[in-house]
Amino acid sequence: MASLEELLKQFQQYQSKGLSINMARGQPCKEQLDLSMPMMDVLNSKADLTCEDGIDCRNYGVLGGIPECKRLLGDIIEVSPENIIIHGNSSLSIMFDCVSRSMTHGVLGSTPWMKLDKPVKWICPVPGYDRHFSITEYFGIQMINVPMGKEGPDMDMVEELVKDEYVKGIWCVPKYSNPDGTTYSEAVVKRFARLKPAAKDFRIYWDNAYSVHHLYEDDQDFLLEILDECKKAGNPDLVYKFTSTSKISFPGSGIAAVAASERNIQELKQRMSVQTIGFDKVNQLRHVRFFKNLQGVKSQMRKHADILRPKFELVERILKEEVSENASWNNPKGGYFITLRVPGCASKVIKRCRECGVILTEAGCAFPYHNDPEDSVIRIAPSCPSLEELEIAMRILCLCVKIEQAK
Amino acid sequence: MASLEELLKQFQQYQSKGLSINMARGQPCKEQLDLSMPMMDVLNSKADLTCEDGIDCRNYGVLGGIPECKRLLGDIIEVSPENIIIHGNSSLSIMFDCVSRSMTHGVLGSTPWMKLDKPVKWICPVPGYDRHFSITEYFGIQMINVPMGKEGPDMDMVEELVKDEYVKGIWCVPKYSNPDGTTYSEAVVKRFARLKPAAKDFRIYWDNAYSVHHLYEDDQDFLLEILDECKKAGNPDLVYKFTSTSKISFPGSGIAAVAASERNIQELKQRMSVQTIGFDKVNQLRHVRFFKNLQGVKSQMRKHADILRPKFELVERILKEEVSENASWNNPKGGYFITLRVPGCASKVIKRCRECGVILTEAGCAFPYHNDPEDSVIRIAPSCPSLEELEIAMRILCLCVKIEQAK
Repeated sequence: MASLEELLKQFQQYQSKGLSINMARGQPCKEQLDLSMPMMDVLNSKADLTCEDGIDCRNYGVLGGIPECKRLLGDIIEVSPENIIIHGNSSLSIMFDCVSRSMTHGVLGSTPWMKLDKPVKWICPVPGYDRHFSITEYFGIQMINVPMGKEGPDMDMVEELVKDEYVKGIWCVPKYSNPDGTTYSEAVVKRFARLKPAAKDFRIYWDNAYSVHHLYEDDQDFLLEILDECKKAGNPDLVYKFTSTSKISFPGSGIAAVAASERNIQELKQRMSVQTIGFDKVNQLRHVRFFKNLQGVKSQMRKHADILRPKFELVERILKEEVSENASWNNPKGGYFITLRVPGCASKVIKRCRECGVILTEAGCAFPYHNDPEDSVIRIAPSCPSLEELEIAMRILCLCVKIEQAK
Repeated sequence: MASLEELLKQFQQYQSKGLSINMARGQPCKEQLDLSMPMMDVLNSKADLTCEDGIDCRNYGVLGGIPECKRLLGDIIEVSPENIIIHGNSSLSIMFDCVSRSMTHGVLGSTPWMKLDKPVKWICPVPGYDRHFSITEYFGIQMINVPMGKEGPDMDMVEELVKDEYVKGIWCVPKYSNPDGTTYSEAVVKRFARLKPAAKDFRIYWDNAYSVHHLYEDDQDFLLEILDECKKAGNPDLVYKFTSTSKISFPGSGIAAVAASERNIQELKQRMSVQTIGFDKVNQLRHVRFFKNLQGVKSQMRKHADILRPKFELVERILKEEVSENASWNNPKGGYFITLRVPGCASKVIKRCRECGVILTEAGCAFPYHNDPEDSVIRIAPSCPSLEELEIAMRILCLCVKIEQAK
């Protein structure tokens, strides 16, 4: 094993290269974006921009989305078209709006959360998605950590916490979770569907961002459909389910949607009608004409996987070669992230990497209030760099882990 | 002059035709939408989707909008790019979000409006835009009518009302106003810029929806630029200014923006960063590549005017022929609406028109709480029907006015 001195020498060598490699965000790489370029041709100036119920997509209106797009996104997240509302380009915005409306107007007749005598509380499985936590933090909602295990969040804790009527929600990324890559087990989903929260306006925010984002054709995680489970359990209104095509077509120019029970959908639509006349139907049509159906989406996702898989495998191989004694990590079968655990030194490792031009998501980002109690989690986003860059970045990351642990 | 009996006979004849003509909403007609079809070709699968600062518009990011789009929309509403934020497809959503954020978080450090001991109040020039009033109504904001005159809202009343610290805002459509077609005079804009509201978090919601929507090339209304006037008057933060391309390119698939002072923009951006990673940059790029610059927009607007002008003139001609003794109306030089005034019988006229298949915006829509105190205002939206349909619809409308006044 190399001495600290030797490790630092290697570090200086890397530092002298003046690198700039970004592994901070789960962004598709250029080659992935190129996969969707033919979508730019499906609607040209000669195209008929009428959707299947005869409406001209170029004009105002159609609040909930055009029928064929409801069907396509419904298929992606396994719900019927009548249970889905198509929005603009961002599922994060839909989640923000759902929380915001609950703050100002409550949920299905409940007291607006801002009018309660105490702040609302929220369950946050950790590690989790930083942008989720930013929303609840923005609204002054008190966030409570619940650890993620191999099958999902600690459900004993969740079941206990929902007995508090001020606990109004939970953030979930149930499939190939951000950043752990964990898929909730059938048992966990069933326990979610059978939750009996003290608060009638408690909602599970089920962010199914990676529903079709498999790395392997023959080894995929399976996630039980939650809305159906909730209905069976007599809890139909318990869940808001979110999805988007951000990592299927173009991030920022894709389509997002929320799915829920009839009652929830009715309330969401009524409130949306104050907010907008309708979302971008031309883009909805463009997506449907390009992907055609779920098979088209799956075929596209296989192409994404062919680009992403070697990157994930490279990261895992280097981690195994370099830090198998110093750290632990997950080997996800889909999604966009690998979580590396280096208890006690994550923030120092991230800082040191940055000094060498390797940008990782900032320390603590996977936790509410940016506070990783064990200073352990490093989120690796391998999608954006090239394989060559990724190899260098991972060698540097592993080197930094070894240095910080040797000090 | 025809007797009531004769008028009713004519009415029955129209009724027997089984017509269905919609003059309810300010929607562009098919020919107008066709004008923007070449926009569908400017970005194809071979196009370089990099914006001028080198960012790939297909990926995440760029919260405030791409530089060239900020410049284009900035030119449309006469502000510099640094004072503008580009959003998604709907300026109404931006306005909703501005009010919503003020409710939950206040404005530049003020108390969140929902935390005040009394409901917030809002000044509503009437007649005005129904969707504006829906937003303030949704948030339980108490709306106060102020009459519109030939030069804009009654500024004596406005200046008096803003002395109340619970009055936090005013809705304005300052150019070719909805539904009056009035453009605020220089004197009115200057009085707006010099307002001294008791509430530091009072904002003028300046919805410049029809800034380039002239009907005539040689006879256009001029509107003084408000942000600049506010700056001169030492009130730089007083205004949020809104615009969109909804009636320039495609309604629902256009681009919207908010402009404001540096401090306001900074706060808006900070709050937006919780809400979204960014809006649809590909669509921003598509608009810039199609219109190129303000001249391109103006050229497009001349083509819109060529389609709209005959419709406005037809409406005005028929009104003059038929009801010059029974009603009054405006002859706007731009925008999307003509306001017909029939004191005491607007709701009955609208109801009767509907029985004949002519759909007008519902009675009272131009007033807060749908309450037109004089039951006088009928908003005519002539853009959508063909000239032939419009002629019939207008004859019917005028007939219904005569019937209700003869009864």
